[in-house]
Amino acid sequence: MKKEEDSYLDVDAYKIIEKGFHIDNSQVSESIFSLGNEYCGIRGAFEEGSQGLRSLRGTYFNGIYEYAKQTNSVGYKGVVRRTHFMINSVDWIACRIEAENEVLDLSSSDFSNFRRELDMTSGLLTRTFNWKLKDKTNIKITFRRLLSMTSCHKAFQEIEFTSDRKTKINLILTLNSNVLHFGKDCYWKNGQEKKLGDGIIGLSAYTLTTGQKLVSAMKVDIQNESYKTDFSELRVDESYHIDLSANKTFSLVRYVVNLIDKNGHQNEEIMFDEAQNELGESSKNGIDYYIEENKKFWSDIYDKSDIVIDGDLKEQQGIRFCIFQLTQAYHGYSSDDNIGAKGLTGEAYSGHAFWDSETYCLPYFLLSNISAAKDLLMFRYATLKQAKERALELDCHGACYPIATLNGQEGCDLWQHASLQFQPSTGVAYGVFHYFNLTGDEEFLKKYGLEMLLEISHFLIDRGQWDNDKKYFGYYCVMGPDEFEMMVNNNTYTNYMAQRTFDYTQKIFKKYGTPEILAKCGLNKKFLSEIRNASQHMKILYDCNTDLFEQHEGYYSLPHIDINSIPKEDFPLYSHWSYDHIYRNDMIKQPDVLMFMFLYSSSFTIEQKKANYEFYEPRCIHESSLSPSIHSIFASELGKEKEALCFFSYATRLDLDDYNRNTSEGLHTTSLAAAYMNIVYGFGGLRTDQKIIKINPTLPASWKSYSFSFNYKGSHAKVLVTKKDINILVKGNELKLNIYGKLCHISHSLVLVRKQ
Amino acid sequence: MKKEEDSYLDVDAYKIIEKGFHIDNSQVSESIFSLGNEYCGIRGAFEEGSQGLRSLRGTYFNGIYEYAKQTNSVGYKGVVRRTHFMINSVDWIACRIEAENEVLDLSSSDFSNFRRELDMTSGLLTRTFNWKLKDKTNIKITFRRLLSMTSCHKAFQEIEFTSDRKTKINLILTLNSNVLHFGKDCYWKNGQEKKLGDGIIGLSAYTLTTGQKLVSAMKVDIQNESYKTDFSELRVDESYHIDLSANKTFSLVRYVVNLIDKNGHQNEEIMFDEAQNELGESSKNGIDYYIEENKKFWSDIYDKSDIVIDGDLKEQQGIRFCIFQLTQAYHGYSSDDNIGAKGLTGEAYSGHAFWDSETYCLPYFLLSNISAAKDLLMFRYATLKQAKERALELDCHGACYPIATLNGQEGCDLWQHASLQFQPSTGVAYGVFHYFNLTGDEEFLKKYGLEMLLEISHFLIDRGQWDNDKKYFGYYCVMGPDEFEMMVNNNTYTNYMAQRTFDYTQKIFKKYGTPEILAKCGLNKKFLSEIRNASQHMKILYDCNTDLFEQHEGYYSLPHIDINSIPKEDFPLYSHWSYDHIYRNDMIKQPDVLMFMFLYSSSFTIEQKKANYEFYEPRCIHESSLSPSIHSIFASELGKEKEALCFFSYATRLDLDDYNRNTSEGLHTTSLAAAYMNIVYGFGGLRTDQKIIKINPTLPASWKSYSFSFNYKGSHAKVLVTKKDINILVKGNELKLNIYGKLCHISHSLVLVRKQ
Repeated sequence: MKKEEDSYLDVDAYKIIEKGFHIDNSQVSESIFSLGNEYCGIRGAFEEGSQGLRSLRGTYFNGIYEYAKQTNSVGYKGVVRRTHFMINSVDWIACRIEAENEVLDLSSSDFSNFRRELDMTSGLLTRTFNWKLKDKTNIKITFRRLLSMTSCHKAFQEIEFTSDRKTKINLILTLNSNVLHFGKDCYWKNGQEKKLGDGIIGLSAYTLTTGQKLVSAMKVDIQNESYKTDFSELRVDESYHIDLSANKTFSLVRYVVNLIDKNGHQNEEIMFDEAQNELGESSKNGIDYYIEENKKFWSDIYDKSDIVIDGDLKEQQGIRFCIFQLTQAYHGYSSDDNIGAKGLTGEAYSGHAFWDSETYCLPYFLLSNISAAKDLLMFRYATLKQAKERALELDCHGACYPIATLNGQEGCDLWQHASLQFQPSTGVAYGVFHYFNLTGDEEFLKKYGLEMLLEISHFLIDRGQWDNDKKYFGYYCVMGPDEFEMMVNNNTYTNYMAQRTFDYTQKIFKKYGTPEILAKCGLNKKFLSEIRNASQHMKILYDCNTDLFEQHEGYYSLPHIDINSIPKEDFPLYSHWSYDHIYRNDMIKQPDVLMFMFLYSSSFTIEQKKANYEFYEPRCIHESSLSPSIHSIFASELGKEKEALCFFSYATRLDLDDYNRNTSEGLHTTSLAAAYMNIVYGFGGLRTDQKIIKINPTLPASWKSYSFSFNYKGSHAKVLVTKKDINILVKGNELKLNIYGKLCHISHSLVLVRKQ
Repeated sequence: MKKEEDSYLDVDAYKIIEKGFHIDNSQVSESIFSLGNEYCGIRGAFEEGSQGLRSLRGTYFNGIYEYAKQTNSVGYKGVVRRTHFMINSVDWIACRIEAENEVLDLSSSDFSNFRRELDMTSGLLTRTFNWKLKDKTNIKITFRRLLSMTSCHKAFQEIEFTSDRKTKINLILTLNSNVLHFGKDCYWKNGQEKKLGDGIIGLSAYTLTTGQKLVSAMKVDIQNESYKTDFSELRVDESYHIDLSANKTFSLVRYVVNLIDKNGHQNEEIMFDEAQNELGESSKNGIDYYIEENKKFWSDIYDKSDIVIDGDLKEQQGIRFCIFQLTQAYHGYSSDDNIGAKGLTGEAYSGHAFWDSETYCLPYFLLSNISAAKDLLMFRYATLKQAKERALELDCHGACYPIATLNGQEGCDLWQHASLQFQPSTGVAYGVFHYFNLTGDEEFLKKYGLEMLLEISHFLIDRGQWDNDKKYFGYYCVMGPDEFEMMVNNNTYTNYMAQRTFDYTQKIFKKYGTPEILAKCGLNKKFLSEIRNASQHMKILYDCNTDLFEQHEGYYSLPHIDINSIPKEDFPLYSHWSYDHIYRNDMIKQPDVLMFMFLYSSSFTIEQKKANYEFYEPRCIHESSLSPSIHSIFASELGKEKEALCFFSYATRLDLDDYNRNTSEGLHTTSLAAAYMNIVYGFGGLRTDQKIIKINPTLPASWKSYSFSFNYKGSHAKVLVTKKDINILVKGNELKLNIYGKLCHISHSLVLVRKQ
């Protein structure tokens, strides 16, 4: 199923550029031109709005959410009856522009020279066009928009008008918390709207049931003496009459501060005061100051984690967009935050974080921003309580991490996922292992990691079962990462990951365990022998003659389906096939056996990888956007360069070229991380699941060279892979690296011939 | 898990009697004292209402329903997003009684000599008690209530007052369609309220979205000149001032007619006219006439189908209550009707009919009322269109009958049942087979049966799959009758029933098939060889060494659970165990292998039955009320008399003694049919799955004798089983019966020694 690109953006190494307005892609562009600073995100909707364009206008705050109505359907125990979701929040860019009695609306106005540009070196979004009035007046309008990366409450909007004759403009700048979620319901109730003094107006709003609040304030820097302020529920409008002189640029800046109170404990008046202070700071410094600050921020990000591709500008732009957007979604601003499947770029997937956080996103942060990586794990520690409550709902003890969540509670109301899939729990254990492996952070293990491991193992020992001969331990009625096989027994991914979790828990307990931590978890020494026993007898469906792992008991007996025989118009299958239909054959949605073989790559031989790749790849339809990258990484390792490139083909540009035709709903944020892994773990051959980092670089034939960087225990390494050789530059401590299977000690630099 | 009875009713062969008001059982009594005539049902709620009693006040009409709101959850294809349910309808018994400024309410009034009686020879419900006013006045009040069994629109209410001194009574008689479903929502909108002349008032009401209507009318026969009529939305009140003389009985009769319009095509004025006419007839004939008509009706029913038990009056009362209530729920009044799991005695289970209709209820009608049996199958023919639409939703052709329905559409919004369970479809095919076997009705087969068989087989061939060696045909991702094993492969029940369906379809097609019927079903000759091939290669997990059928692939490998080790307080498991928890072991909810071995009993040897009974019985927790009877039937056949009695122990009195503690929600109507089968197929050893009916009677030790009756091809047989012998009386044609394995021709009577 070859996917087709829908390209309409200019290619540039550091910019995303739309020349001429692509009306059919308007909502896709909203996603692509999203800004975010982890704290808050805003889609690239038009400031002035539009009656006639496809649009999903949205602003989101990390951790601001609402509960859904409780469902009325049969309430089986352990089935989530009330999910929660990130809500659309204050619209702080809205404005209404009227010139000579014409209202600006790009779906009906006459305009030309449209250009939109997102500068990935600063995060500045610029849109400019010429508006031609009915009386032939030409007004050039430019909008700029910025979220500060370093002072996350602060947001900026700049508007410029240049008319070719004297023109009267009526401008209304709006701050509006009366926004609709998915265009349907408003989840905010009224707080206050008021003047805070010093030209600042403020607005507070409350979530309906979660007791959270949002204080927004704005101050407009404009050469205009008089304006009118209208207050209405959840909304403030400031109206200006502007007399444009001919050919003279008129500009204004709107400074905005948004303060959220996730727990509802903060005093509203103090929040208003803080907003006022921060706004004072903003307007004193001016927007250019924050643009410069952002440039420094991004320069630092690219220093640490950039991938430079020579020979393919489209891929270069693609991978930089991935790094840019992934960082916008998360960079360790707060340990309360996590990474939603769509980041902060849309309300689809409810803003929920999945197991993607530990398995797909964490490696990027482990290699570029240890503190962010730690914070990502700290989210799981902070929500251990909810995970323990969830385990109890499933008749187990210990901690069961949710399939989908914003607040630590299980947010997935489909029992077949929430009650049968345990990769979030084993994923957190893997994350702890991975983090410690790369950092050696003993403090973290002792204070947080071990406790999580014990609680997860406690859940896993409770949820597992011995077979009737007491010979094997395993998991019955589960669903592995491959969501096309449900309620299966002894899914090898689940069993293997549990086994590794048990082993690692024992190992870490042996090293750092205390009676206190056991007691804190309500466990005793017997528990450790229980998990040892379970691990030693874990049922792993492996055939040493074929080197194949069977995905689950009975998988081989499922009717085979030739996935190439499925008509193209049947995809996505969830929309076109009856729900039960997708399950009753050996087709898989995404890697399952290959997934654990990737995570613990060093534990498997190349023969095992080859056998399982060649068996499972033809059965996989990649209906998850996380799937192709893992296959590409295997193909690289197995020397299947063509296949590796084929799977990579749309990894970096999944959203830029809207391959899945659903970028309009928001970016595939966690897939951006998969694209990063595809290059670094795939072509770069990086492996981080053992004490010594390995690299095994290959070079896609069409590239001249590429480089990637990573941090590792006080060192910073930059690996440049050219047609001829591999150049490694190390800053900081001497670095031990296993390259092409050989251990190298690098204190400054190393040049090696590239293995062909 | 021994269940405990909660007995509070008097024991009597033909009556249900409550002496003294059992306030804790008030809502249970409402279910038990339900009246019904298939067309309509009414719970035994108090006419005068009560503020302080547990009550689920309800009137229901067969086929009057509403759609639920569409759910917002993810809409996978084939998953029902909008279910439908039988709605609470007009309250035609409501009244308000005030005497000397005191309002009658049995939760607060002072009363004595309470007695309630349901006469199963007439269907007359009587309630009487003495009401003591604060001024010591004693008023004896008697309510009578009747639904006509022969003129189903007609309903009757009689109220009598006898006071020991002169007393002023204010009485309001209400006709009210503004009723709440489950005490929450009213699903009716206003039509008209009006005087129809001749003292008759009428009320029409419309369902909210299904376009159905209900016209109700009443006429009160009372010795009172003046009364006041108040009309309000969906409601009419008639107020009377009654002056009771001392010790003189004052009585009134309210005649009611309810006319439903299921399809919304009828003219409302014509319906009002008809109601007026029928009310005229009612009041002309008087209530006693209809009581007599009902007595004739019930006498005829008992003639045809009664079970008489000598030696155990409790069982006698129990089984007669079963026959009485089953007949109240259904007796072939209309082929539009079906039998809800709770009949017309409560809104639980949404009034839906399940596969119980063909597998549990049909035998009763086949043996006593062929025309009702045919009508029950005609419901399926009439809803073939919906079943074909449902098959398409499941990516198949042919007909897939719904798991739960009122109108032929799938009403079950749990995909795991609606998309995985096919026993309704194979059940309909079995019903056609069973019906033809007992009736030889070729016309039915040619006009309806064969078409249903072809359509069902078409669905079954589409839904099934060949294994990879093309050696076996079978079903993947299904759920058999045992709802504790989900998404299993090659469930033997499903496979076996499909095989028999294919075989029967071929056989019947060979005999009665035409090119036209094939064409009508969109099939050709190839189809017949396809189903032959599938049947010949159907995967049946049978081990001839052990005689065991494995319930599904991998069942034997499931961890065993000793069901006796489950704490009593964990039941029902659905409420106390996490949903996934109930699935991951070899515990079964209800017979699965034993079920097909019961349906096609004659196809299995006694050794096979013994082996499978002894293997599966200890694994079954009977969380379905349909389960124990099937086990009892097996135990009888296997000579395990003690077990047979043990499983039978609460079959006939499941509701009378509220064994499951949920009779308050309504009667277990289809379990009433199971109780009937338990005696006739169990102790009587009746088998009807071959051309010649078999009987194999045993006698429970505590009974002196019992008799049962059945109709078969123009004969009526009454079988009396005593300690010593078996007496068979035949009316009509000579009857061929296989008794204890010997073929007997009986023209009038036969006496045989009973096998011990």
